[in-house]
Amino acid sequence: MQQQSVYYSEYLQLNKIIEAQQLESEKDGNTPAHDEMLFIVIHQAYELWFKQILFEIDSVLEIMKKPSINDNSSDLQLIVHRLERVVTIFRILVQQIDILETMTPLDFLDFRDMLRPASGFQSTQFKIIEAKLGLKFDQRHGQDYYLSQLKNNDINKIKQSEEGPSLLELVNKWLERMPFLDDADYWKNYTTHTELKNVHPFWADYAYKYDQSLSESEKNNSVYFKNIFLEEDVSAERSLSSAACRSALFIKLYRGYPLLELPFQMLNTLIEIDNQMGNWRYRHINMVKRMIGSRVGTGGSTGAGYLQGAMDKHYIFREISQLNSFLIDRKKLPVLPMALSEKLGYHF
Amino acid sequence: MQQQSVYYSEYLQLNKIIEAQQLESEKDGNTPAHDEMLFIVIHQAYELWFKQILFEIDSVLEIMKKPSINDNSSDLQLIVHRLERVVTIFRILVQQIDILETMTPLDFLDFRDMLRPASGFQSTQFKIIEAKLGLKFDQRHGQDYYLSQLKNNDINKIKQSEEGPSLLELVNKWLERMPFLDDADYWKNYTTHTELKNVHPFWADYAYKYDQSLSESEKNNSVYFKNIFLEEDVSAERSLSSAACRSALFIKLYRGYPLLELPFQMLNTLIEIDNQMGNWRYRHINMVKRMIGSRVGTGGSTGAGYLQGAMDKHYIFREISQLNSFLIDRKKLPVLPMALSEKLGYHF
Amino acid sequence: MQQQSVYYSEYLQLNKIIEAQQLESEKDGNTPAHDEMLFIVIHQAYELWFKQILFEIDSVLEIMKKPSINDNSSDLQLIVHRLERVVTIFRILVQQIDILETMTPLDFLDFRDMLRPASGFQSTQFKIIEAKLGLKFDQRHGQDYYLSQLKNNDINKIKQSEEGPSLLELVNKWLERMPFLDDADYWKNYTTHTELKNVHPFWADYAYKYDQSLSESEKNNSVYFKNIFLEEDVSAERSLSSAACRSALFIKLYRGYPLLELPFQMLNTLIEIDNQMGNWRYRHINMVKRMIGSRVGTGGSTGAGYLQGAMDKHYIFREISQLNSFLIDRKKLPVLPMALSEKLGYHF
Amino acid sequence: MQQQSVYYSEYLQLNKIIEAQQLESEKDGNTPAHDEMLFIVIHQAYELWFKQILFEIDSVLEIMKKPSINDNSSDLQLIVHRLERVVTIFRILVQQIDILETMTPLDFLDFRDMLRPASGFQSTQFKIIEAKLGLKFDQRHGQDYYLSQLKNNDINKIKQSEEGPSLLELVNKWLERMPFLDDADYWKNYTTHTELKNVHPFWADYAYKYDQSLSESEKNNSVYFKNIFLEEDVSAERSLSSAACRSALFIKLYRGYPLLELPFQMLNTLIEIDNQMGNWRYRHINMVKRMIGSRVGTGGSTGAGYLQGAMDKHYIFREISQLNSFLIDRKKLPVLPMALSEKLGYHF
Repeated sequence: MQQQSVYYSEYLQLNKIIEAQQLESEKDGNTPAHDEMLFIVIHQAYELWFKQILFEIDSVLEIMKKPSINDNSSDLQLIVHRLERVVTIFRILVQQIDILETMTPLDFLDFRDMLRPASGFQSTQFKIIEAKLGLKFDQRHGQDYYLSQLKNNDINKIKQSEEGPSLLELVNKWLERMPFLDDADYWKNYTTHTELKNVHPFWADYAYKYDQSLSESEKNNSVYFKNIFLEEDVSAERSLSSAACRSALFIKLYRGYPLLELPFQMLNTLIEIDNQMGNWRYRHINMVKRMIGSRVGTGGSTGAGYLQGAMDKHYIFREISQLNSFLIDRKKLPVLPMALSEKLGYHF
Repeated sequence: MQQQSVYYSEYLQLNKIIEAQQLESEKDGNTPAHDEMLFIVIHQAYELWFKQILFEIDSVLEIMKKPSINDNSSDLQLIVHRLERVVTIFRILVQQIDILETMTPLDFLDFRDMLRPASGFQSTQFKIIEAKLGLKFDQRHGQDYYLSQLKNNDINKIKQSEEGPSLLELVNKWLERMPFLDDADYWKNYTTHTELKNVHPFWADYAYKYDQSLSESEKNNSVYFKNIFLEEDVSAERSLSSAACRSALFIKLYRGYPLLELPFQMLNTLIEIDNQMGNWRYRHINMVKRMIGSRVGTGGSTGAGYLQGAMDKHYIFREISQLNSFLIDRKKLPVLPMALSEKLGYHF
Repeated sequence: MQQQSVYYSEYLQLNKIIEAQQLESEKDGNTPAHDEMLFIVIHQAYELWFKQILFEIDSVLEIMKKPSINDNSSDLQLIVHRLERVVTIFRILVQQIDILETMTPLDFLDFRDMLRPASGFQSTQFKIIEAKLGLKFDQRHGQDYYLSQLKNNDINKIKQSEEGPSLLELVNKWLERMPFLDDADYWKNYTTHTELKNVHPFWADYAYKYDQSLSESEKNNSVYFKNIFLEEDVSAERSLSSAACRSALFIKLYRGYPLLELPFQMLNTLIEIDNQMGNWRYRHINMVKRMIGSRVGTGGSTGAGYLQGAMDKHYIFREISQLNSFLIDRKKLPVLPMALSEKLGYHF
Repeated sequence: MQQQSVYYSEYLQLNKIIEAQQLESEKDGNTPAHDEMLFIVIHQAYELWFKQILFEIDSVLEIMKKPSINDNSSDLQLIVHRLERVVTIFRILVQQIDILETMTPLDFLDFRDMLRPASGFQSTQFKIIEAKLGLKFDQRHGQDYYLSQLKNNDINKIKQSEEGPSLLELVNKWLERMPFLDDADYWKNYTTHTELKNVHPFWADYAYKYDQSLSESEKNNSVYFKNIFLEEDVSAERSLSSAACRSALFIKLYRGYPLLELPFQMLNTLIEIDNQMGNWRYRHINMVKRMIGSRVGTGGSTGAGYLQGAMDKHYIFREISQLNSFLIDRKKLPVLPMALSEKLGYHF
């Protein structure tokens, strides 16, 4: 064969990739536990994909850190496209659990004690993914546990990525920059909700219509509406500002306009990332439960317990998802002023 | 075309199937809400599959009700094969939620108020599936709710199927009938666990080895071992008897023997049914949350809340799954006496 | 229970849906073949989904039949959204074959002879889907077979939908209407390809760059380029005009511009529909092969043979997919004139 | 953190795994092509899984090479379990193509020319998988191409694995060893098919019943029946002997007997491996077609063309699958003599 510039196995560095499986169970000349190979390979496959996910998230953060996303370029499209790829990858990671489920509990027992205290919990890359998306140290389930289980070098890497700016923070700023309702004299007649009128008459009008859409038992949410959309009532716990929430709701309500299509897809994709990470944790929990029952995981904790805690708390874009509570029937939506409506359309 | 004995569309009664979609939103001459068609069709598809699942479960119950499963026939194989089909169907039902997720919250708002109080919660067939698998009325989440939401005719159907015998009860009896350790003088030397010795020396031996496999922090489970495997300590809450638990554990431990392959697959498939029903509820919850946020579902309750409750409580074969806590390393398993070992193998 | 306006089982007309299964095998008091129920239910589920797919396609055709798609409204977004839903449905239909594969060949033999000559081939709805997407009678594999197998009433329905206008025809017109390069004096300097210059200098420039990107062995495609993009050389066999092809290629090349995002998604989704219908046929073929080997199908033909023929020929949006041969490296793309570039961006 | 015996990232050798991605496109200080990372990572993930598949196949070959599979042990169960795992892995590999499909043709163009002539075609591991399953050099599509594209070292590895014994050959031997009909005087009355009577009266009887089940148009297959089940007529092209075919058909026909359950699952799983490898190639073909249209692949050939050829020819367990043509209605099956029937059942 003639000399080649690029050769598949060299290009992929397969000498590293497929020679990096060393069974603990066959050390010291012991009979290897057959299923340990699967255990190693699937975790390596997960880590490969985590690397890819981080690569995509980093590229998205890079674009979003610019003072303004250039709407005349492909910035927004690239962001959406890459976040959708992250979703697609997570979807496969969820299905991939099917492979691990071919390992029976008894097969796992053949080598699980030898791995202590290593466990999937120690995946530094996964924790960095969470941090870069927007999970703060304070919000983590099992914080102490993570400090005690990881080496300093790894802790530092996670800490650094927890400092941000995270995707969630950048999304918040991007939403705050949205100019849609800035100048509209149009809204001056809306007077129902006095507090919201001070923000913008549009929102006063919207809040009125929203109130009307509520059943008696839901009326309490009306207060909640103000909590979210009026800055002064918002507790420090929230990660989206009122201005950002208003923009996000506006996008969800008027996504029929061409200009709002990509922003809508962005918000939707963030919710879908949470959704898939939730699916991943949920299937993982069940797999762990089936595998070791109520016994203690290799990492010294009950793996299922940790995952359950993470499932409940590590729901990063929850505030974007919760805005769906404030949607109203399309037919009742305030009609946008012509000037704004035209701006949101195509110009050809 | 010449006269045919069987014609596709007539055989499938398509005049019924594809003419059974009547949009609420277009009644009284209103403009139809486009996505209501999807809403109807997907629920009809679910109900078609629920019918198939019930058909399979009924056939399995029929076989298992016989005084003894004829091990010389294909009884056990049929049971496993049909339960695995149920798993495969549930797997698709889970993925099918992808289709419903193409409906945006705003699209749903176009017609959701017109459906009140109908909701997926009112699926009689699904409740019957749960009942026939083994869920009792007492264990149901939202019992009163179901009595108040359904018509008497439907309540009666569910009640009837709750009376059993359910698959779980029949599995319990089938496990109790297992003859493996009945006569074995072989076990007489095992003396560690006095209580278990009275049951069978094998179990005393096994309990001893299990104790040894425990870490200090797990020692408490040892008590739990006796709770499960000794009848007198078992609370009335359990659905599997000690004898059944012992057989199930025996099958899991010695499934390498040809004779135990199908029994093992049966137990595994039951756990997988729970697993898939859990996946279905979990994805459903997330879809509902995304769709209506914290608002009240069409059925008058928070759909997500009900599903969460059901997810935690309607875990029918939990006791079979929990037995995995009592597995020990294959290398430490008590060796079976030759006579038993031979019986569990092939004879050719 | 109090009177309800809408009750789940009535709303879904479940009395029709789940009472429409009549086994051929249990007619005349024979013992029913267990798996015939599955056979009926899965085909009914397919037909339910075909109904939904037709509903979506019809709504898309309705929008696209308008003299011009209103780009300032949500027309284009609705089209893309609904076609993507069709893709999602097909994806599930592909996976659903997993369920049918739980039927063993021997189980199928228990009733297959009773169904003759009914076969999935007789699905009128599926043929209408193909026709509405753009498959013409002349292009069909097994035309005579379809005329001989179906009842006149069904043949007429298919014939009617074959008359169009199909989605493919409407897409062709929509692409022809694209105004991007209409007036651009900018292009006057591009002179390489004389024939294409007459069309538009942009395309002459593009063809030149494309030629340069070809390896020696690919040079022949250069002729092909002209065949497709210059009307006079196009054979009557093609379904996209040169003008439409040029617009489609333009969209693929410059999809980074916000205005081209939805048009790009539309083209991509059409290719994906073909892709999923191909997957469906391919998995179907394998299932049929496994089920009946080389024997003759219930419809009197070899089912696998028909599907193979259909797979090769019923590839409706092939011409859109083939345009990918004409892509060139993004870095070498002709720069668009400022005026056009701005028109393709956001205006806020 | 205290000293740990096993640390996750060290155990998985993540320093190798996630540091093995070197983009060609950023060599010499060029701007990297964003999507090249995905291209590398997904191929590495494929190779990781190919390693796992080979590991499973090797372990299966090891067991099957023994002079006799110990039916009294878990040999057969292990074989089936591991081959089913291979199926599960392939299933995920098929779905994983979803991720690669997020790369648009234009994104691929950013770096594809830099990779020449590397291509997935050069995967040595995949060719070894094919060889170990049973694909011989003579049967390969594009033999010369493979000799010209790979380095000698890789060619040698593949050659070595082509020498066997392959899984297909070992399956053939295992089937030939089946003792079911060896001694049965019972069959002496079956006299219809003289040639088959010489083999065994059972098969003469079976062939008679099979003939009766044929429609007129299928009668020719009757000849085919003898071709397959009578050694002397079998061409050298076949990989299963007549004796093996008879055993395989026997297993398929009488799989209701407990003893035949695992053998049946084994045959079924082999067909399913072919099925999934076919799905993988088919989806791969479509992806390549969409990605590069009719242009030449990085490896210098049309990737889609090669895959199409492989899809048609690399169908390794075809002969097992084709036996399904010879099934007859269960009700018409010859009844087995009591002695044999008992042997095939459980003995407890």
